[in-house]
This record gives sequence, C-alpha cells and structure tokens, in this order.
Amino acid sequence: MATDHLSNTFAALADPTRRAILAQLASGERTVSELAQPFAMSLPAISKHLRVLERAGLIARGRAAQWRPCRIEAGPIKDVADWAERYRAIWEKRLDRLGTYLNDLTKKETKNAGKHRRK
Amino acid sequence: MATDHLSNTFAALADPTRRAILAQLASGERTVSELAQPFAMSLPAISKHLRVLERAGLIARGRAAQWRPCRIEAGPIKDVADWAERYRAIWEKRLDRLGTYLNDLTKKETKNAGKHRRK
Repeated sequence: MATDHLSNTFAALADPTRRAILAQLASGERTVSELAQPFAMSLPAISKHLRVLERAGLIARGRAAQWRPCRIEAGPIKDVADWAERYRAIWEKRLDRLGTYLNDLTKKETKNAGKHRRK
Repeated sequence: MATDHLSNTFAALADPTRRAILAQLASGERTVSELAQPFAMSLPAISKHLRVLERAGLIARGRAAQWRPCRIEAGPIKDVADWAERYRAIWEKRLDRLGTYLNDLTKKETKNAGKHRRK
C-alpha cells in the first residue's frame, strides 16, 4: 500500500521499538546485538525491525559481513519535520484558543470569587 | 500492533490519501462528499480513511447526523513535529558534512581548472 517515500517513513516510524532503535542510534553506531540488548528481543526480531528502517532510509548498515554496525540516517526524519511544520499555524491557533479560554475562565473565577467575598 | 498514541498517529499518516485529506482540512471544515470529490473515490472508501484519522485524533467530526463536517485536529501533528525535532542536530550535522564536502569539491575543481589553464 505505502509506496511513496513519506508513507514508507511514517509506516516505519509507527512502531515504538523502531523509534527506540533510532533513539539509541542517535548517540552513535550500534551492532545488531548491541541494539537487541535493551529490548530483550531475539536477533531475528530486531533484524526484522532494522530491515524496515533500512528500507525507509532511516538507517544504513556497514558492509563488514559479521559486524555490520547500524547508523541513523536523519534525512527522512527531516522530511517528516518539514511535513508537520506546514500545520504549525493550526496547532498554535488551537493552543491560542485554549489560552484565551483559560484566561477567560480565570477572569470569571476571579470575578465570582470577588462576588462571594462581597456577600 | 500500534497501540500507543504516537504509533497510531504515524500509522494514520502513512497514506498519501489521508495526508491529502488533512491538507484539504487545513483550509477549513469539509463534508465527506466535499472531501471525496478531488480523489474520485467512493464515499465508503473516504469514510474508511476518515475513521482511521478520527481514531488517531487527527480529525474530529460534527454531530449533525446527515451533514457531519470534518475538521482537522493538529495536536497529534505537533507531537510528530516534537518527536522529529529531537533529531534536528543529526540531520543538520549531515547537511553540514554535505556542505563541507561540496565546498571541498568546488575548491578541488577550481584548483584543477587552474592547472588545466596553466598547461
């Protein structure tokens, strides 16, 4: 189904283990066994996740047959950030509205509290 | 599989039609038939996409039985932006490296061009 580049990226990121792998790789290269350790996951299970990440261009792997360290490739994450950025005006307006609402609420409550004190 | 909030959001965004629906809703509320028009898609097909977006909290729908306008809810998109933002340092470093590389390349080529001219 997901054939375009951005859809592949989003699909690859729709899994907490794969996002945790990227978080680990953010601090440097890791071998598959190093990556598997914190998840208490089998190597084949981790390898499957790595293949999804690799196909989406989110990681790249070294060529050495035995020790193939993985490294993060942040280009597709930048594409995600650029995509999300287009909606910034909308979520900021939403938060502005919430701010206005909370502000009005505070004013009303202060006014009510004033009334109660006057009684 | 995808049970956490962010995974649901990423899964919902992993489809070009659903992203195009969000892009349409960015300019204002739309009914299902208005949304279906540009895609030459059946109403049930569009409704299925809308359900995925609604479950992920990316859209909300009006309550009027017949005319249930959809509106965008950008909160989950902000979460995506916040998630991606953590990797900014990495893609900027990568682009810096590319910049350095292209700079070096230009210098080398300028030098080579100079040699050729001197011959």
